[in-house]
Amino acid sequence: MAIAFGRFDDSFSLGSFKAYLAEFISTLLFVFAGVGSAIAFNKVTADAALDPSGLVAIAICHGFALFVAVAVGANISGGHVNPAVTFGLALGGQITILTGIFYWIAQLLGSIVASFLLKVVTGGLAVPTHNVAAGVGAIEGVVMEIIITFGLVYTVYATAADPKKGSLGTIAPIAIGFIVGANILAAGPFSGGSMNPARSFGPAVASGNFQDNWIYWVGPLIGGGLAGLIYGNVFMHSEHAPLSNDY
Amino acid sequence: MAIAFGRFDDSFSLGSFKAYLAEFISTLLFVFAGVGSAIAFNKVTADAALDPSGLVAIAICHGFALFVAVAVGANISGGHVNPAVTFGLALGGQITILTGIFYWIAQLLGSIVASFLLKVVTGGLAVPTHNVAAGVGAIEGVVMEIIITFGLVYTVYATAADPKKGSLGTIAPIAIGFIVGANILAAGPFSGGSMNPARSFGPAVASGNFQDNWIYWVGPLIGGGLAGLIYGNVFMHSEHAPLSNDY
Amino acid sequence: MAIAFGRFDDSFSLGSFKAYLAEFISTLLFVFAGVGSAIAFNKVTADAALDPSGLVAIAICHGFALFVAVAVGANISGGHVNPAVTFGLALGGQITILTGIFYWIAQLLGSIVASFLLKVVTGGLAVPTHNVAAGVGAIEGVVMEIIITFGLVYTVYATAADPKKGSLGTIAPIAIGFIVGANILAAGPFSGGSMNPARSFGPAVASGNFQDNWIYWVGPLIGGGLAGLIYGNVFMHSEHAPLSNDY
Amino acid sequence: MAIAFGRFDDSFSLGSFKAYLAEFISTLLFVFAGVGSAIAFNKVTADAALDPSGLVAIAICHGFALFVAVAVGANISGGHVNPAVTFGLALGGQITILTGIFYWIAQLLGSIVASFLLKVVTGGLAVPTHNVAAGVGAIEGVVMEIIITFGLVYTVYATAADPKKGSLGTIAPIAIGFIVGANILAAGPFSGGSMNPARSFGPAVASGNFQDNWIYWVGPLIGGGLAGLIYGNVFMHSEHAPLSNDY
Repeated sequence: MAIAFGRFDDSFSLGSFKAYLAEFISTLLFVFAGVGSAIAFNKVTADAALDPSGLVAIAICHGFALFVAVAVGANISGGHVNPAVTFGLALGGQITILTGIFYWIAQLLGSIVASFLLKVVTGGLAVPTHNVAAGVGAIEGVVMEIIITFGLVYTVYATAADPKKGSLGTIAPIAIGFIVGANILAAGPFSGGSMNPARSFGPAVASGNFQDNWIYWVGPLIGGGLAGLIYGNVFMHSEHAPLSNDY
Repeated sequence: MAIAFGRFDDSFSLGSFKAYLAEFISTLLFVFAGVGSAIAFNKVTADAALDPSGLVAIAICHGFALFVAVAVGANISGGHVNPAVTFGLALGGQITILTGIFYWIAQLLGSIVASFLLKVVTGGLAVPTHNVAAGVGAIEGVVMEIIITFGLVYTVYATAADPKKGSLGTIAPIAIGFIVGANILAAGPFSGGSMNPARSFGPAVASGNFQDNWIYWVGPLIGGGLAGLIYGNVFMHSEHAPLSNDY
Repeated sequence: MAIAFGRFDDSFSLGSFKAYLAEFISTLLFVFAGVGSAIAFNKVTADAALDPSGLVAIAICHGFALFVAVAVGANISGGHVNPAVTFGLALGGQITILTGIFYWIAQLLGSIVASFLLKVVTGGLAVPTHNVAAGVGAIEGVVMEIIITFGLVYTVYATAADPKKGSLGTIAPIAIGFIVGANILAAGPFSGGSMNPARSFGPAVASGNFQDNWIYWVGPLIGGGLAGLIYGNVFMHSEHAPLSNDY
Repeated sequence: MAIAFGRFDDSFSLGSFKAYLAEFISTLLFVFAGVGSAIAFNKVTADAALDPSGLVAIAICHGFALFVAVAVGANISGGHVNPAVTFGLALGGQITILTGIFYWIAQLLGSIVASFLLKVVTGGLAVPTHNVAAGVGAIEGVVMEIIITFGLVYTVYATAADPKKGSLGTIAPIAIGFIVGANILAAGPFSGGSMNPARSFGPAVASGNFQDNWIYWVGPLIGGGLAGLIYGNVFMHSEHAPLSNDY
């Protein structure tokens, strides 16, 4: 484990501001499409309960949009788009804490702006928030989010941050998008399948409904942190190239 | 910003004509499949209202077909397949205005021919046009199209036009196809999720129904132009290789 | 246009036999999955009429399976898996006629074996054949198959056979699989969306039902041939590497 | 055929333990998502019979999750995630028997842990096991699993283990994930579409229901073994790089 706080001026360079802007835009695009697909389901079904075809629509939308959000940000900010990913990479020494804090701010702002934009363009429809389903307890929701976020951040490490990766430059964003798509197909009807505090926080702000929101901070940060500690200590060796642009 | 009008003879070279033909064919194939999937939904459901499984079918079809249309045109014309993409690239100085005008003509012709062919092969079924859904105003439709087309053209810049891209030659068409698939899953039940004036114009011509068609010119051109200006000025540096074949 | 008949002994070398075996296995795997997904729909719906979710299931299955069939055959036989692709490549001078005939035999045998295996493992369920839907005439079906097969073989040329392709080694099988998936989503409820005489012939043999089967020879061969002539003459230059292993 | 038992100490090196841990984690993530998607279908439909949209959800989830499981393990363990793949590679001389036995143990443990975790996070819902559908006999189920697992392991050989593969480093995990997705769309309503003894064994342990479980050992091992023998002897030449890390 190699946590680095980072030099103050590094986090305020021009390159760093470009990275924060890239995180803001990538998260905005991801959350706009992802939450938008949930509103679209409510629109075409007149707010019916989730069914398998709706689950497919929402899972594919999140998977495709996250793939794109990571791919378009990869060369500028590393394409985290997720505070749990940034946290897991910080625990593994891939990004400094100070830069990570600015990443978090950019991601949360992107999600909030996306959620308010969705209210505007849908004519004021409700922005759905993450919460655990009927019959699922808060602890079960937290454990579910720990497991699936562990899978996501483990995937980020194995395909994007590991210097052994070789020619996996194309694989990383596909794998990151597909693990989120797959996990939503499994976890959607239980915890909602967030894996991402920013994805859950923006809709909570736009709707003013913070019930269960803590679950989507605690679960993903524990799961992402565990993945960073395990992958970083067991599978990675010596020096490694940082995933973000720490100027 | 570096807009270039272009030399007259460059736009009339043999290579340029091949590029126009490639845009015509790519757009024809994309619109034929995409609009065809909407007609297919109407056929198997006897013109029922859109449901989640139909939205999945239409979104995946557009995503897959656009991926292919971009991939097959990439080495000949750059694979724009969309007047908003051409416009956004012109604003960023990636293609001359004169060549861009011929690209627009080729794209619009491809979409018109595809739409008439669909009337023939489906035994004269109606060719559905884009319009805003019930409960969604024209302004909301325009804003929706601005946002999602911004995402599309931002993706084009980040994966295809940015010289920092490195080995992203495979990523570009996948990302372009998937952002359109994801955005249709979100925007389909509201604005229709066009992001492409040519995609909307061909069916309007074939059906003689131009209601709301202006929305799919104004929204995508503003969104695509904004993406070109922002990405080109903030994230791109100095010289860059042009995305199209400007002979 | 450069059609070559080929030397007799070239088509009987050890390498050629491996290529024929690879075509047989690839076509078997593709048809087994593709036709299997149609039988699976009939099983879970008790032979209901096609609906949008069934169309998605069948289109994705064909797209994914064809991607795999092309990818696993690419380095041995070129991964044609389709008499219309072999024909289009022969018209463009990418494979000799004699070798092409053996490819056809291998592809048809693979499809026939797959279709009979499906009868066995499903406990004798009916193997569905391609035919035009109610309200669609034979000519309309032929024209539909011409257009969508043109798109498929144009994609093969642009991504796999064109020496300008560069690093498109990963793109080719993805594009070939996705254009077939997209075209089935559009054409499925009209002509069935075959694009492949072998895909249609095997089920016809296994079920003994050859009604409309001529449509899936005439349409795909015209469409594939047109694509070979147009792409080969307009977009390709001088010498080019052959796509198959013509030993 | 070149089966190697392997040196005792090779299978107990640090690198080998990392490979076993990677197989354990990859299989856990794959089974958690895959079986989770089946539980999710039961949850949102209140245990309804499988329908086409549920089949799409489950097939896509398995395809995406397997793609990720293979990709994240590729550089550490080779990303087998499946005793039938390990067996097929052992028969082709790609991995020693001793190392293969430890791979099996890691894969089975990963699946068992995933299945018990699913019981916890879903609030104690039933973990569904593989079995043949009504109207399908045990022999038919075995033959179905032989055929589809042959396709899977043939794909592993052609894209990952064959030294002729060239730049197919990105293709292998995509092809492996997609062939499983396609085969589930075909075989799901008949044999369940396992192709993987570990995928079937974990839920059997967690639910205490071993009915039909033998089918998912016999079928996949015969199919995977056949693929290893045929591909290894017919299509591969002389020396080849091993797919796993046999230290």
